[in-house]
Amino acid sequence: MTIVLGIDPGSRITGYGVIEVNGSKSHYVDSGCIRTDTDAELPERLCQIFEGISEVVRLHLPQEVGVEQVFMAKNADSALKLGQARGAAIVACSALRIPIFEYSARQIKQAVVGTGAAQKEQVQLMVCNLLGLNKKPQADAADALGVALCHSHMQQSMIRMAGAHKIRRRRLR
Amino acid sequence: MTIVLGIDPGSRITGYGVIEVNGSKSHYVDSGCIRTDTDAELPERLCQIFEGISEVVRLHLPQEVGVEQVFMAKNADSALKLGQARGAAIVACSALRIPIFEYSARQIKQAVVGTGAAQKEQVQLMVCNLLGLNKKPQADAADALGVALCHSHMQQSMIRMAGAHKIRRRRLR
Repeated sequence: MTIVLGIDPGSRITGYGVIEVNGSKSHYVDSGCIRTDTDAELPERLCQIFEGISEVVRLHLPQEVGVEQVFMAKNADSALKLGQARGAAIVACSALRIPIFEYSARQIKQAVVGTGAAQKEQVQLMVCNLLGLNKKPQADAADALGVALCHSHMQQSMIRMAGAHKIRRRRLR
Repeated sequence: MTIVLGIDPGSRITGYGVIEVNGSKSHYVDSGCIRTDTDAELPERLCQIFEGISEVVRLHLPQEVGVEQVFMAKNADSALKLGQARGAAIVACSALRIPIFEYSARQIKQAVVGTGAAQKEQVQLMVCNLLGLNKKPQADAADALGVALCHSHMQQSMIRMAGAHKIRRRRLR
């Protein structure tokens, strides 16, 4: 059993989602969002993200973390803001030596919906379906659960690939 | 006496400079740079910045921190990288509740050289002059010392302004 934390960082709202992965089965544990005080100065807001994620880590003790990779930001100003939020969220986990994995939006869509061209809303709906949630979580929390599901999916694929490779090697002998 | 830490964050090199401020006098304490391992993954590199700054903080116990404000990044990609490094460096101080002040490049040049239009090299030379250094520190370390000097200068100006304001108020009575 592995506890996986997914994070969707943002300067105003940082979503988080925690799932429990047991073989090919994933169960919902917790999700939510850290809203920064828009009136506060930047260092205080980054501190809120850092402490919010640290609190989730203390509570659920995740063994692995997934975070969405940013390929192309809209513009330099929003990239700087997103970068600062990402930095604060990532060090809250990496300072505790929890392995962090980055996934592209395409990989997340592919893993959750089955197609890399899926819409954002489809991902959020599938997150609810896959985890058997009656109520749709807040958008950023749902996105974070999507990253966590993508991570568990990718790890499973790697285990399967490693297994197939072993079988093939055994047959070749 | 106030210990001021200046930080010049960067994804590859993060400069730091520590000065001791006593009234209008500033003395050099320490400076250097945190070089991240370019072969390492992003979370590991951000962790190196976070831990590097945390170590400097543990060693010198600064009461105030200055960091250069980023107004306009070159492009979205470099803004994201710089943002992540800034986020990691800033939370290392803000999580410990050390007040952090941001200064524009113009404010730093004005405070250190006397003109907001000064060249980067002039700032580094003036940093050596003001702190009586025989050897020019590495560029990022010198920039960080420049931010620390700018902070002490701005604080002194505010104290003077507050003093002048008090005198004026007393005269008006």
